Amino acid sequence: MTGKYEILVHEVGPRDGLQSISTLFSTSAKLEWIRAEAQAGVRQIQVGSFVPPKMLPQMADSAEVVAQAKQIEGLTVSALVPNLKGAQNGIAAGADQLGVVMSVSEAHNQSNVRRSLNESLAGFSQIVAYRNEVEADRKTVISGGLATSFGCTISGKIPLADVMALAEQLVARGADRLSVADTVGYANPRQVRELFDELFRTVGRDIPVGAHFHDTRGLGLANVCAALEAGVREFDSCLGGLGGCPYAPGASGNIVTEDLVFMLESMGMKTGIDLDGLLTAREIMQRHLKGEPTQGTFAKAGPPLGFVPASAA
Amino acid sequence: MTGKYEILVHEVGPRDGLQSISTLFSTSAKLEWIRAEAQAGVRQIQVGSFVPPKMLPQMADSAEVVAQAKQIEGLTVSALVPNLKGAQNGIAAGADQLGVVMSVSEAHNQSNVRRSLNESLAGFSQIVAYRNEVEADRKTVISGGLATSFGCTISGKIPLADVMALAEQLVARGADRLSVADTVGYANPRQVRELFDELFRTVGRDIPVGAHFHDTRGLGLANVCAALEAGVREFDSCLGGLGGCPYAPGASGNIVTEDLVFMLESMGMKTGIDLDGLLTAREIMQRHLKGEPTQGTFAKAGPPLGFVPASAA
Repeated sequence: MTGKYEILVHEVGPRDGLQSISTLFSTSAKLEWIRAEAQAGVRQIQVGSFVPPKMLPQMADSAEVVAQAKQIEGLTVSALVPNLKGAQNGIAAGADQLGVVMSVSEAHNQSNVRRSLNESLAGFSQIVAYRNEVEADRKTVISGGLATSFGCTISGKIPLADVMALAEQLVARGADRLSVADTVGYANPRQVRELFDELFRTVGRDIPVGAHFHDTRGLGLANVCAALEAGVREFDSCLGGLGGCPYAPGASGNIVTEDLVFMLESMGMKTGIDLDGLLTAREIMQRHLKGEPTQGTFAKAGPPLGFVPASAA
Repeated sequence: MTGKYEILVHEVGPRDGLQSISTLFSTSAKLEWIRAEAQAGVRQIQVGSFVPPKMLPQMADSAEVVAQAKQIEGLTVSALVPNLKGAQNGIAAGADQLGVVMSVSEAHNQSNVRRSLNESLAGFSQIVAYRNEVEADRKTVISGGLATSFGCTISGKIPLADVMALAEQLVARGADRLSVADTVGYANPRQVRELFDELFRTVGRDIPVGAHFHDTRGLGLANVCAALEAGVREFDSCLGGLGGCPYAPGASGNIVTEDLVFMLESMGMKTGIDLDGLLTAREIMQRHLKGEPTQGTFAKAGPPLGFVPASAA
């Protein structure tokens, strides 16, 4: 673990990335990767998803991965949970943070989790109630995820008011943080700025807000810049740009962790992450990938001559 | 040609792109490509370079390409010229705009054109004097290009003061416009914003200023956004991201025209360019490329469902 950070980079590769590829990672392969990223200074990693093993064999060992990852000093271990059962398993495994995602687009939510948005919201309340019941200190952070916030492959344009309505619902139902996702790679920088400006006006600045961008149309890092200007300080990304959304046709590629870190550090924003360490973690991940493709430019181009990352300054 | 535009997209593929690849394009192949882009609404295209044919066989037909491209209604035909001889040939061929590029980095300038920066500046003055002598109306626009403005693969960091000093020199010597280039893909959005803010303070806002970004480290479009915020309204790009800088090791890939246009149009900024027409032009270019790689995400992903470009609104 390195020094302080101003921007939280939330690595989601071991969940979001692996979920979308064919190669099955062993528990030890996942942990080797996770440890290498933590070693490079990554503070928060989404290590698994508490879904039925039959649905996603890649995620069947999530309880074990969470338990092992929890041994890494200073690492916030997050996991995705689709429902109360998943949340119970996630809390039992000891996850620090649980992500509960639903789509602003009713059609996408139906297609993705076969529930109406109201049913998903009711499920979210059950999860918060359960956490409050079993944890006097409410230590497990419940993150409310807003998928398809910038557009939907089924419904097209998503009204800003719908995003705000869902955000308010999630906060009212006890979300400890919000994660706003461009699930299908439709967002543009102007829209990003407008959405987050409006979101902060709506829910205030006391609740942490993260952004989840895809690079499907090449605008991922430009969207990060727009979100930074609006005041967002937490970003999801995948090492090597692994993954996408298996339910959204044409959607591919989370933004690339090492490119994101390079951009932030070059802009003078501390991530606390060492880029060389990140490239080592990338090599480890790639060794287990058996030739499946990765993305990213920094790994190919390397740093500019004389580059001094903000975290090293 | 389609409607009005707010942002000028300057296609440089037929010069900057072709200069860096192996496949030799015939004059008719270049013109087929240029006509298709003009048809899509691109208003300014850099079609060639007036260098000795032995140095760059790909550019040997530049006079013919300029003359033919000049037949396209509404198209501003630009070309690169390295010296007075090139400018004489460019003006004789009828180019609307001549780009004269030198590096802010003395070492890069020496390595690139085997001249000191002062010698390059003297050459620039000769070109302006010649244009003024042969054209009473001074109609051929002389663009002063500042290469390596954001860093150099030989010298590393470039002081902002050096960029401003060269910009002032170019304006004093009669540049009609400036083109600020991240020749080797080192720029980051914060630096871009700072540089253009300072540049507009230095040279004022009466002189047109263009930006030339590479996507070597994935920050090309994020840099465009930062430049837009500073007030830049003209951008160089290459269809399919063709090309790079043959003199800068590791530098590859201009920003991608179709991705740039998609971003601008999605942000509500009119380019006057039709994206479908641009993809048609891309297919034409690719047909002549004989398998050499192209870049870009928009061509793969297509527009978001329900997307309405600003120029069509």
